[in-house]
Amino acid sequence: MRFANRNTLWGTVIADELHNAGVRAVSLAPGSRCTPLTVAFADHERIDPYSHLDERSAAFFALGRAKQTGVPMPVVCTSGTAAANFHPAVIEADEARVPMVVLTADRPRVLQDSGANQTVDQERLYGDAVRTDRTLPEPAVDDRKLRSLRTTIARAVATSMGPDPGPVHLNVPFEKPLEPVPTDDVSEAFIEEHPLAVSGRDGPFIDVSTATPDPNPEKIDALTDAIETALRGLIVTGPDSPLSGAKLAQLTEATGFPVLADPLSGHRFGAHVDRVPVYGGYDSYLDAFETAPDVVVRFGASPTSKTLRQYLRDAPARQIVVDSAGEWPEATFTATDLLTADPTRFVDAITDRLDRTTSSQSWRDRFTDMEARYWSFVGAETTDFEGGVLYDVAALAPDPSTLFVSNSMPVRDLDRFGKPRSASIAALGNRGASGIDGVTSSALGAASAGTEPLVLVTGDLAYYHDMNGLLAVDRCGVNATIVLVNNDGGGIFHLLPIEEYDPPFTDFFNTPHGLDFEPTGELYGLEFERVDSREAFRTAYQRSLNSDGTQVIEVAIDGEQSHRHRERLHERVKAQIGD
Amino acid sequence: MRFANRNTLWGTVIADELHNAGVRAVSLAPGSRCTPLTVAFADHERIDPYSHLDERSAAFFALGRAKQTGVPMPVVCTSGTAAANFHPAVIEADEARVPMVVLTADRPRVLQDSGANQTVDQERLYGDAVRTDRTLPEPAVDDRKLRSLRTTIARAVATSMGPDPGPVHLNVPFEKPLEPVPTDDVSEAFIEEHPLAVSGRDGPFIDVSTATPDPNPEKIDALTDAIETALRGLIVTGPDSPLSGAKLAQLTEATGFPVLADPLSGHRFGAHVDRVPVYGGYDSYLDAFETAPDVVVRFGASPTSKTLRQYLRDAPARQIVVDSAGEWPEATFTATDLLTADPTRFVDAITDRLDRTTSSQSWRDRFTDMEARYWSFVGAETTDFEGGVLYDVAALAPDPSTLFVSNSMPVRDLDRFGKPRSASIAALGNRGASGIDGVTSSALGAASAGTEPLVLVTGDLAYYHDMNGLLAVDRCGVNATIVLVNNDGGGIFHLLPIEEYDPPFTDFFNTPHGLDFEPTGELYGLEFERVDSREAFRTAYQRSLNSDGTQVIEVAIDGEQSHRHRERLHERVKAQIGD
Repeated sequence: MRFANRNTLWGTVIADELHNAGVRAVSLAPGSRCTPLTVAFADHERIDPYSHLDERSAAFFALGRAKQTGVPMPVVCTSGTAAANFHPAVIEADEARVPMVVLTADRPRVLQDSGANQTVDQERLYGDAVRTDRTLPEPAVDDRKLRSLRTTIARAVATSMGPDPGPVHLNVPFEKPLEPVPTDDVSEAFIEEHPLAVSGRDGPFIDVSTATPDPNPEKIDALTDAIETALRGLIVTGPDSPLSGAKLAQLTEATGFPVLADPLSGHRFGAHVDRVPVYGGYDSYLDAFETAPDVVVRFGASPTSKTLRQYLRDAPARQIVVDSAGEWPEATFTATDLLTADPTRFVDAITDRLDRTTSSQSWRDRFTDMEARYWSFVGAETTDFEGGVLYDVAALAPDPSTLFVSNSMPVRDLDRFGKPRSASIAALGNRGASGIDGVTSSALGAASAGTEPLVLVTGDLAYYHDMNGLLAVDRCGVNATIVLVNNDGGGIFHLLPIEEYDPPFTDFFNTPHGLDFEPTGELYGLEFERVDSREAFRTAYQRSLNSDGTQVIEVAIDGEQSHRHRERLHERVKAQIGD
Repeated sequence: MRFANRNTLWGTVIADELHNAGVRAVSLAPGSRCTPLTVAFADHERIDPYSHLDERSAAFFALGRAKQTGVPMPVVCTSGTAAANFHPAVIEADEARVPMVVLTADRPRVLQDSGANQTVDQERLYGDAVRTDRTLPEPAVDDRKLRSLRTTIARAVATSMGPDPGPVHLNVPFEKPLEPVPTDDVSEAFIEEHPLAVSGRDGPFIDVSTATPDPNPEKIDALTDAIETALRGLIVTGPDSPLSGAKLAQLTEATGFPVLADPLSGHRFGAHVDRVPVYGGYDSYLDAFETAPDVVVRFGASPTSKTLRQYLRDAPARQIVVDSAGEWPEATFTATDLLTADPTRFVDAITDRLDRTTSSQSWRDRFTDMEARYWSFVGAETTDFEGGVLYDVAALAPDPSTLFVSNSMPVRDLDRFGKPRSASIAALGNRGASGIDGVTSSALGAASAGTEPLVLVTGDLAYYHDMNGLLAVDRCGVNATIVLVNNDGGGIFHLLPIEEYDPPFTDFFNTPHGLDFEPTGELYGLEFERVDSREAFRTAYQRSLNSDGTQVIEVAIDGEQSHRHRERLHERVKAQIGD
């Protein structure tokens, strides 16, 4: 530990206590005011530092890694607009409930509102998007303040990982000297007399244990009755469902309810798929299916599939939303029960009490049949090349692997064409606020956490938006297979009625940019390959998965044609599969 | 005007009233929720639309244009993280006091906190950085609401351009349909019966006139006394000084005080330089000059030059800060008088009353002599290549032209090596929060406002950070000469004590990225040229100034060597010029 002066000590204690709370990696953006933090993280032998030049990308990188690990990767920047560049990722972390610890270095209070350089009001910078917002006291060699510092850090990490996980903001003012210049601040006597404050404990300074939300037992009895008497029950798991595959299987086996699993729920892929029926083709056929469920149990965020959301909206069902913090993920307001409960506790409580099930075999069979017909149809006839890419990406993804998809079309196509598999594929995306920003950085952050292959499927707008994030490939030594589905603009707008109004459709909505992305290969040291057939894509994809380094496989798509393909496919599916 | 439905009408009224308030251009980022705004701006015949794909760049583009014109360029985005990407530019607009109107489309209130897609809490998104923050009511075909809308827009523009100019935020919720789909909402009868609400007036709906801050007359008398009896008076104009060159000349002629003009003050260059002595070499010699001023009059933000700030700090002078909103731009807290006053009114009031001056001729002569010797020395011996680039850029810039410099080294080198000229050169930079973000976009935004040549001098980190901003060259048809001073990392950190600590200096502060920027030429359709001598630079620079299109002239620099050069030059200047 470096104790050169009070700032060095302060930074060292922060890094040390973060490590004690479980942190193993940090995302740093260079700057002067954050020097005591940067030096402390660079010195720490058991925290891996990742250095980024664009703070926006740095924060999304941290978000992606935390999505993969469940542990926050602190993200550190200097004072001024640097901190505002974190804002998009902070909002995504809030909405998607991803642990994040934001450390913004600040000028000392004496410089607030003084016209000093890079001095802005950083308190409450992220508004209500953070679970905790605190400006630390200025560093001091003081027993109580150091204990307070360690306590604050331990609590911040715990809050970020609690029942309602999300971002926390610690604003950290420093007065000069910022460098580890020895001063008389930190005496040997102080260090010896206050070992706990200075060096901490063997483990977290304060062992923060958050409570597990235990569901109301009377409510569980009532819901058990409802589930026992359901004829056409359904389990729906939305993005970032906080339920393990095993627990999902336990609930499914006990209730006999089919599972409709969002591609980002954590349930579309995994070992449980062999044990229990998990369905993934619903977006294509559910609007042709007129039978409604009578009981629905929902986990996770609002599903990606509009077809599914509308199907649930129109069902006169008892719709039970289970959420660990009582948050509301259901914008049609047709749910009937909001149960605050740890999802695992909920599953255990229900399956403990469940004596019988009246679940209809024909209801289950109908789903099984629709799924089987859908996937055999799609497998054979994915004339839609863009959808075919997602079909192949999911079907050929290694076991284990991580699959990150951008918003807009890729996540929708994965929803439609990503066939459930028992392989261990962590499918991730930023569905909290569903922005197109920070996708590459989030994916590379997720890749940095593990050794399994990482596949990113991104659209051209998302690829452009976070081009700076590609620097991490070389700078942070992260590898990926990047599938770039390029339809030269906002293909998704073809889904919307604005398509009928041109002008302004082409210039201001579809907004073709005409960018040739091949030079990004040279710029960032990536192998760039363009493919023009599904066969060529499959070959390139498998070659990339078997290679080191990072490959970008660009698939050029005509956005409008591709949308027409999807429409025709949908009509054919409905004709073949519907009621 | 399009009145298809209430949303179309609402968007049309917003665009129309903005135009009536003086707006002539808008910065748009594509999205669905903002469709009624996008369509209205695309339809408006007298507002030029600029479409960007990265909201961060879109907002900085608007900032740069408003810096050039003094009129806000509204910046429009869809709901979600898109709005958070505006945050860095909003903070810069706040700190640098640049008019900005931020229009964020929002989901309707019924979807707040519902888990709906792209729905985040956008109220108060920018905290205290905005002068006004208002969520509009949801669109309605209602006389009072439409009048309120026109009033709100007119007032927002006026606030953004008032005595304390800056950003305003209007959050605009829309419920579907977002497209101009005809509905029964807007009847012909309503349009006929409420022509003012629907079509507005010929001019702003409400003619908002803000007050001019008139200085306290007794205070002016007292300050006139102080100025009259000063022996060694000084006028210091910091960045974004809100005083015209003519008014500065008027004050200088009346008082006999020398002017130290920051490169971004608006006073380093311009016709007044021929009339009154304007000095620009102070950063290099003032720390060797032991005579202190007894009265200092300050305008604008805190000067870029640390030497100057410390000289003022250490002077036992009466130091008068003139600010139109009583803001404080002086972080050493040695000023004695904070005068809230319109700077023009202040100058007129002082020069009206001033009967005599005791200003010392030898004091003025000393400055004139130091300046002359400094510039002849620097002109002949700028062995420092990096500084030489800025010397040449300023000396050879066309008359008229706009010169935009990034933070970090370019602005400091312009301060040191940008010789005062009577040419009409608008020298701009983002010195509000002094971030390295958004520099390219700000410069291109400034370029979009005029026909004179635009020169951007940027460092490699700033160039990388806002690489997305280069899309505007082709997409928005803006041209520039971009001088890229590439020292492969954070050259400025060589100025700081952290240089002595390696590790972590190289990996986490200087952070060489090793990027070869040449492919950015191909990516964005720029002519990219690399030069390796001052002579080659001059040739390339002049060729670019005489060419159409956009040229990037990369000057490769060794950051450390360059810093040593500056140090040696400084020592030699001090030895030759000091007291």
